[in-house]
Amino acid sequence: PSAIHEIFKVTQDPEVISFAAGNPSPDSFPIRELKDIAADLFENSGKMALQYGMTEGYGPLRDITRERISRKYSVGGEGDDLIITSGGQQTIELAAKVLLNEGDVVISEEPSFIGALNAFRSYGAQLVGCPMQEDGIDTERLEQLLRTTPGVKLIYTIPTFQNPSGRTMSLSRRRRLLELAEEYNVLIIEDSPYFELRYSGEPVPAIKSMDTNGRVIYSGSYSKVLSPGIRLGFACAPAAIISKMVVAKQVSDVHTNLFFQMAAAEYLTRYDIDEHIRTISETYRQKRDRMLAAIDRHFDRRVQVSRPDGGLFIWCQLPEGYDSMELCRRATARKVAAVPGATFSVDENAPNTGFRLNFSMPTDEQIDTGIAVLGELIAEMLA
Amino acid sequence: PSAIHEIFKVTQDPEVISFAAGNPSPDSFPIRELKDIAADLFENSGKMALQYGMTEGYGPLRDITRERISRKYSVGGEGDDLIITSGGQQTIELAAKVLLNEGDVVISEEPSFIGALNAFRSYGAQLVGCPMQEDGIDTERLEQLLRTTPGVKLIYTIPTFQNPSGRTMSLSRRRRLLELAEEYNVLIIEDSPYFELRYSGEPVPAIKSMDTNGRVIYSGSYSKVLSPGIRLGFACAPAAIISKMVVAKQVSDVHTNLFFQMAAAEYLTRYDIDEHIRTISETYRQKRDRMLAAIDRHFDRRVQVSRPDGGLFIWCQLPEGYDSMELCRRATARKVAAVPGATFSVDENAPNTGFRLNFSMPTDEQIDTGIAVLGELIAEMLA
Repeated sequence: PSAIHEIFKVTQDPEVISFAAGNPSPDSFPIRELKDIAADLFENSGKMALQYGMTEGYGPLRDITRERISRKYSVGGEGDDLIITSGGQQTIELAAKVLLNEGDVVISEEPSFIGALNAFRSYGAQLVGCPMQEDGIDTERLEQLLRTTPGVKLIYTIPTFQNPSGRTMSLSRRRRLLELAEEYNVLIIEDSPYFELRYSGEPVPAIKSMDTNGRVIYSGSYSKVLSPGIRLGFACAPAAIISKMVVAKQVSDVHTNLFFQMAAAEYLTRYDIDEHIRTISETYRQKRDRMLAAIDRHFDRRVQVSRPDGGLFIWCQLPEGYDSMELCRRATARKVAAVPGATFSVDENAPNTGFRLNFSMPTDEQIDTGIAVLGELIAEMLA
Repeated sequence: PSAIHEIFKVTQDPEVISFAAGNPSPDSFPIRELKDIAADLFENSGKMALQYGMTEGYGPLRDITRERISRKYSVGGEGDDLIITSGGQQTIELAAKVLLNEGDVVISEEPSFIGALNAFRSYGAQLVGCPMQEDGIDTERLEQLLRTTPGVKLIYTIPTFQNPSGRTMSLSRRRRLLELAEEYNVLIIEDSPYFELRYSGEPVPAIKSMDTNGRVIYSGSYSKVLSPGIRLGFACAPAAIISKMVVAKQVSDVHTNLFFQMAAAEYLTRYDIDEHIRTISETYRQKRDRMLAAIDRHFDRRVQVSRPDGGLFIWCQLPEGYDSMELCRRATARKVAAVPGATFSVDENAPNTGFRLNFSMPTDEQIDTGIAVLGELIAEMLA
């Protein structure tokens, strides 16, 4: 984790153009609305909002969340329950704590989100990476891994606008993944923080929406559609798993900040979050297009570039044999920050050609300038 | 945890008089002040307060907390660092995660706080209880345990206004505890959520204030002096341990709700929290005295009753051979809730004569009525 920590530190320098963040744009936060709601909460419900709450989460927020993901995405059915967590990261950590024993194997897309990989590692899991294709995890390779690897307990996937690759798993691969989970009796963590940030293309159903046998733990988040600083996420999963996660959460932090659970419930009641998400998505679509246009102008044609339909990231790969860590190091010296692919790799020390670019945080000018700098550095490296 | 969970559920019934809580009184929350601060934060710093923050905590809150506990209590010195956590429970959980391996032994006061015991259990620790005397942990018995028990990694103590016993460890026992930790090369977690809630008697220095060799992890909390619902605590410990806790926290929840970290920092800057604590303490002193007076009127003389100088709890013990679980069950049927001692016991299934009464939450009338009911039930049992 030190590599990403160091890059995050560099990005504190206001002179640095950062494509390294995973942050939503602060322009997307509904500050005015939350200000009104907070004033009302202090006025009418201060004693409750500042007191201890229930570990499983604030009742109305659980209900609204459950109703919304069921109605809009068919996520959560008979036999499922829902817990409010202190963000998507905590969902993964609690799931890891209650599901994994030392030495259990977790298969994840390669590359994948370091925060989740570290959560699995922290409980002694063995990580096995499964390569992706443009339309998501390579299900043939996955089957081979399931057949030949003893002790696989779960598959971790970010099927939509994957971090870092930006890729979205096709419907047929989602179906196949679920079939394989059944066949080999493993669980799936479907991590979906970016699911609702779609700027082009057709929505693909959540894996959880096809889950009839309680195989899928769905991890959702309010970080990218409301605010990450308030730390609000949720898990929808079979009741027996949620009940274990509640016990683990009681030991972890008793409950999530109650004031902002109540504020979020009120926001979801008073305002139209779907309209809010449409507005954010329109901004992010423009940012994505701007970054892709700049990349087309400045990057050597041999660099492979993902063209994601949503999310926050564009993933680039240098030609075989070039090390993206070296590129990112040189970029930092030129005051441009990007995240080297090794950060997302199951084997963090393996050489890696990929690097991740975030387009939600930088201004249009920063996108143009920073991508031009990266283009120059790439040209030098490939020369 | 199911016993305490069930009791907590019963206490949701507004007709139940609950002495089962660990909650501070909601009358103690500085609602008006936090309302003003929140409005200003949304107005001037909304984009920052709602964005991702640093895992180790919001800089100014770390600085103010460090300065305050150093100036007032000599807690934290050369070589120590400080992390903001999502409440005292998270401090214990993170410390357990980074310090304990499966099978390590943790010695704790018997009885002790179930949330901490469960955190240690969740990482596979073996718990060994050490009895207390009126002036804290029995250091002779502790030495014997350290000498004869292989694999002791740490000692967990709540030295001041212990939960559930209400007892405070004397200065000489604190010194001896620290000496023993040195001699047997073990660490100490000093859990101090009630430290500042003193209503009588002279303050006793924190163990951490005497720690010259980096043996003590000090766990502090804003739950009892500001608000528990906002989930704000901190740990002050040797930098190498804090640095591991930061890594563990990144995996756990990335960071604590940033908005309320900023709000707390602002509260501590604008207002005099010591004055606020004096006001709370005066209220709690009256509650404690009221409950002790009611106990003196209604309880059989054979019941042993602690007379704590602070904190939130009075601890009672039935005569040898009587089971407090049975008393608490009967009390629940009479709509009075208390927590049976078994809940705080290293061996949860062992018969236990103790029960815990909270005096911060009930009204004066509830104290009088509820204690009278308990007195009747005790008289029946002892008849």
